[in-house]
Amino acid sequence: MKAEIIAVGTELLLGQIANTNARFLSEHLALAGIGVYFHTAVGDNRERLLSVLEIARARSDLIVLCGGLGPTEDDLTRETLAEFLGLPLELDPQALETVESYFQGMGREMPSNNRRQAMVIRGGRTIPNPRGTAPGQYVESGGRRYVLLPGPPREFEPLVVESVIPLVRSWMGREVTIRSRVLRLYGIGESSLAERIADLLAGQDNPTLAPLAAEGEVTLRLTARAASEQEALDRIAPVEAELRRRLGKYLYGVDGETLPVAVGRVLEEKGMTVAVAESCTGGLLGEMITDVPGSSRYFLGGVISYSNSAKQHMLKVPGDALERAGAVSEEVALFMARGAAEQFAADWGIGITGIAGPGGGTKTKPVGLVYIGVYHSALGPWVKGFQFRGDRRQIRIRAAKAALYALWRRLRVDGEGASTAER
Amino acid sequence: MKAEIIAVGTELLLGQIANTNARFLSEHLALAGIGVYFHTAVGDNRERLLSVLEIARARSDLIVLCGGLGPTEDDLTRETLAEFLGLPLELDPQALETVESYFQGMGREMPSNNRRQAMVIRGGRTIPNPRGTAPGQYVESGGRRYVLLPGPPREFEPLVVESVIPLVRSWMGREVTIRSRVLRLYGIGESSLAERIADLLAGQDNPTLAPLAAEGEVTLRLTARAASEQEALDRIAPVEAELRRRLGKYLYGVDGETLPVAVGRVLEEKGMTVAVAESCTGGLLGEMITDVPGSSRYFLGGVISYSNSAKQHMLKVPGDALERAGAVSEEVALFMARGAAEQFAADWGIGITGIAGPGGGTKTKPVGLVYIGVYHSALGPWVKGFQFRGDRRQIRIRAAKAALYALWRRLRVDGEGASTAER
Repeated sequence: MKAEIIAVGTELLLGQIANTNARFLSEHLALAGIGVYFHTAVGDNRERLLSVLEIARARSDLIVLCGGLGPTEDDLTRETLAEFLGLPLELDPQALETVESYFQGMGREMPSNNRRQAMVIRGGRTIPNPRGTAPGQYVESGGRRYVLLPGPPREFEPLVVESVIPLVRSWMGREVTIRSRVLRLYGIGESSLAERIADLLAGQDNPTLAPLAAEGEVTLRLTARAASEQEALDRIAPVEAELRRRLGKYLYGVDGETLPVAVGRVLEEKGMTVAVAESCTGGLLGEMITDVPGSSRYFLGGVISYSNSAKQHMLKVPGDALERAGAVSEEVALFMARGAAEQFAADWGIGITGIAGPGGGTKTKPVGLVYIGVYHSALGPWVKGFQFRGDRRQIRIRAAKAALYALWRRLRVDGEGASTAER
Repeated sequence: MKAEIIAVGTELLLGQIANTNARFLSEHLALAGIGVYFHTAVGDNRERLLSVLEIARARSDLIVLCGGLGPTEDDLTRETLAEFLGLPLELDPQALETVESYFQGMGREMPSNNRRQAMVIRGGRTIPNPRGTAPGQYVESGGRRYVLLPGPPREFEPLVVESVIPLVRSWMGREVTIRSRVLRLYGIGESSLAERIADLLAGQDNPTLAPLAAEGEVTLRLTARAASEQEALDRIAPVEAELRRRLGKYLYGVDGETLPVAVGRVLEEKGMTVAVAESCTGGLLGEMITDVPGSSRYFLGGVISYSNSAKQHMLKVPGDALERAGAVSEEVALFMARGAAEQFAADWGIGITGIAGPGGGTKTKPVGLVYIGVYHSALGPWVKGFQFRGDRRQIRIRAAKAALYALWRRLRVDGEGASTAER
């Protein structure tokens, strides 16, 4: 079954709101095994909506319209679809009762306008909407299925889950289950990833493989369809195993396990704690770590050392190191990491110092230069210089992620008993 | 000129991401006086993209495609548009240089795949993209204008502002000037705001007034159209004056002057400095302050005191205060603020302590309870308890913003010679 989604509303075309309904419905249709092939947004305009319906009828089996079911003049989705199908609108007494009782519940008289909301296309079926006055409806015509849903997300989203998906499932001959798994990678670019797994990307269609890049990270989504959940998982397993074989050193987490979550999990498993010392990231690393609920079990705190005197006073970075190597240097990054660990009595310390820009760069120390140090009293120091690209915000995000990944690698290297002298 | 936007990417149809690019671009085109009539989303599929281009050509003058300019096999927007227009792709040496230098900057070899990103449709023009490897491009054919833009919003959005809108403006026959001014308010809700200015919202259409709420802040955008810039500004001025009269005490900034920028400006004007002590916000306040370039001129640093021992050791919060009142209390918030000011030798100190959830709440100290203290050695202490609503992320953002607003108010109260005993 080929589906498409038509969102009706001039506010979408003016950029006042994003089309989150199409995203929400697409996700749920995909999980139910229905492929969505097009999204369209069109204004509250009869002619243009008719033209869009004409296009949709020619290419799709299931056409879901959302928005334009309200009581005002410019809400015309219901009437326009009826006109398009050449079918009359009829009053649904039960729907009218629902609309009337909604106003009774608010202690207000129903405006006559709202009577329109109880009109159903002949042969169609009302989809009750307990959260608003506009019910949805469903009608079949000319071998096509049409579903109308109200636009406000707080009415739309529950209707999708409670009514539309069960309806859709009832159409599917044999039950199809869809399962997804997301592999999260750091330290490899999207194109380099695509080259290493080109054969899998080309050769796989169940599960499908979809890479997606974001700020230094790449995720790889595997999606399988099958008659049962177990069968879907069985389809994913061998492909995941092959991906792990090829990309294992970059893979830090699965599904919702972001870098801060993955680092936190390993720290908790080992019963270890961490503290941070941040210069150019200004608190972002701490913010990312503490965005995870329960992070107080392994995160003790941090110092945002935005000035040299803060580095000396709060982190005990020696003044001569600052003078000799400069605040942005391997040496200072390591002293900061050590200072964080010692001042907070944590097992691990992370130090970040760099130039986030746009000002402050020099020829030898350009914008984007960042040193990251990781300290553990027994395992020895680790430090590395990075040259990040992008604007201030991107450089800061990439630096914080690189620091999390560095700690994750150190935790793993330690766990695997491998060398700790890696630099 | 009739415009439409085509977003290319299977991830949109799978519901993995929302089509925020269409919203962003529509808003900016509307401000430039261009009407957008359709949004379409289509997958990474040659045939379907060709069919969508066919439809667009028949109904629109300006067709903006976004997404599918990446280096991998499934990125085919560039090639498909070239095929659709019957025009060859040619290597743009300058674009190639940009892509190569991007990889040089990362210290990595350019994969051969990325060479495709430097290909431009014959007769077209490259739109340089300093934030990624995929440049945009612009081509005219058959009386239609086509613009291609990269999909990642961090690359897409600045390109719209910096390149696409100026290009679009250059096409407009008679110059219509659009000027906007954004008033930024804190401490007033959207509906309360709408009530106070209901007459202005209803009675104004040049300038138009558009309120927008986000995490405790409300912005109010005034947009005027006129034949000249001066005329547009003259239209805005009296409406802005009336708004300032009604809403002055909530108004902290205009246009891009966010709370951290407004606070920074006043600190710099007064030659003062600030340091922070964060518990539940975990570094977010520091991150927000240091997101502003040049913030090192007034921000000295901070302590993320996620543990009681960090509060004692790093901020000199007395152990008996922690025992007596608990870590989440007015008293500890004030000691933290004072500790921040004293440890970093700053004029101002801010302390934040609270329960961001989802766990950790009790009957007397529920999730969302946050105390914010502001300290200045001469002006006396200020502290206030808040009960924020929302999830962990929202509570943290609201707490950090409330802290910035508290400091802003204190800086203003001081500047106006008013009472400093306000609590």
